[in-house]
Formats: sequence, structure tokens, C-alpha cells
Amino acid sequence: MRGEVRFIGRVTKAGEDLSTIEVLPEYCEGLYRLGEHKHIAVLYWFHERDDERHRGTLQVVPRRHGETELRGVFASRSPSRPNPIGLTEVELLSVEGCILTVRGLDALVDSPIVDIKPVSKEGDRLSL
Amino acid sequence: MRGEVRFIGRVTKAGEDLSTIEVLPEYCEGLYRLGEHKHIAVLYWFHERDDERHRGTLQVVPRRHGETELRGVFASRSPSRPNPIGLTEVELLSVEGCILTVRGLDALVDSPIVDIKPVSKEGDRLSL
Repeated sequence: MRGEVRFIGRVTKAGEDLSTIEVLPEYCEGLYRLGEHKHIAVLYWFHERDDERHRGTLQVVPRRHGETELRGVFASRSPSRPNPIGLTEVELLSVEGCILTVRGLDALVDSPIVDIKPVSKEGDRLSL
Repeated sequence: MRGEVRFIGRVTKAGEDLSTIEVLPEYCEGLYRLGEHKHIAVLYWFHERDDERHRGTLQVVPRRHGETELRGVFASRSPSRPNPIGLTEVELLSVEGCILTVRGLDALVDSPIVDIKPVSKEGDRLSL
């Protein structure tokens, strides 16, 4: 009941506003025509939470969001969760070679990237 | 450069409209207060594409969406991609014990579930 994820790149710069993602050369071909999209979903790995303690966490108090009561991790965005995968929808500013510049990515420098998906323009539905 | 995902449940019914997800008993506690959310993001595993041929695919013609030209897999929702992870935002209809009923899930029966995250009500941003 397990699967293997392969990291396709990493966050090379993280800022208040702009971040850069560098995709590994062997996966770069997969970016073809990504630049046609303005919004993308980025799946990344919470590498600092990839241990048994954090992956065994099932309930949290998400203080960052001003909460004071427990929630299940699947009802929160906590990085401590069974699978340390983060998901953020970001604005794609540019694709230059294997490097993406995005706005709004909430990931630390060196976070491994798991996947990138386009987000349809209609708004709140993620499926293309 | 690899990580391990642990499947937290599976799709037990898949229909045109409604699907059910059964979360494994050992992860069920993580669903606490999920019912407060109307929209959730479901990450699942494209188990039928978890092989070298599909995971080595970097460009596709997404015919299902009426396209006739190649796109990079990261510019598409193709299930053939380096990490066979699907992402769909669905409407959460009910949580009964370890069983969720949702509307709009585009996953096959038996697809392993990787993660469940709440989607904020403001609309197009996924971060809570």
C-alpha cells in the first residue's frame, strides 16, 4: 500500500512574493507549452516533515491560521501529515528553459517538486 | 531523489456523478472536522499507470480534451506522467465514519487515495 514519488525538480528561490523552481534536465521536456497557462498547481514535498513523527500526525491545531482547536490533518493544510505533500496554486510568470518563476508559492528553498499541473481558466475547478 | 507515499484509502465507488472514498481505519482520525468544508482537493494515485512506460512519458496529445498537438505532461492533466498523481477538486457531500461521498471525482474504482485537503471558500486559491 505504498508508492514511490520521483522528485522532478526543486525550489531554488523562495520569497515573500516570487519563487523560482528548477526542473531537472531529464524532466524538462515535460514543460513544453506550460507557458500557455497563467495558473498552475504545484505539488511539492515537505522535506523537513518527512519523518515518522510528522507523518504519524493525524490531528493538529493550525495556529498559523488563528485556530485554537484540533482539526484532522485532512481538514487542514498542515505540513505534518501522512504524506508530506504540499499543494499550492500559483501564478506562472515565466518559463525559461527549465526554470519557472511563479508568484504565491508557499514552499521553502530546496523543497523537492513532485508535480506541476495546469489549472483551467474557469476558476474554481482544477481539472483541465 | 525519491520519496515514499502511503496510501490512506481508496475509491470504493465511482460514478458519473457520485463517488465514495473509504479512508483506512488507521487514518480515519485525520478526517475530524472535514465535514465543515464544502470543497476538498483529493490527491489520488493513477495505479494503472504506475509503470516505467507511463512514468517515462513527458509529452502527450490530450485527445480527450480535443487537442491534436503535443503538450508537455506538466502542461496537461494526463495520467501518464512521472508521478502518477491525480488531483481533483470535488464537492464533499458527506462524511460518515471513514467514508466520504463526493461529487465530481474523476478517479477509477480502487484508485488509492494519497491525500485530502480542504479548499478555501474564497474560490480560486487552494491554500487555507
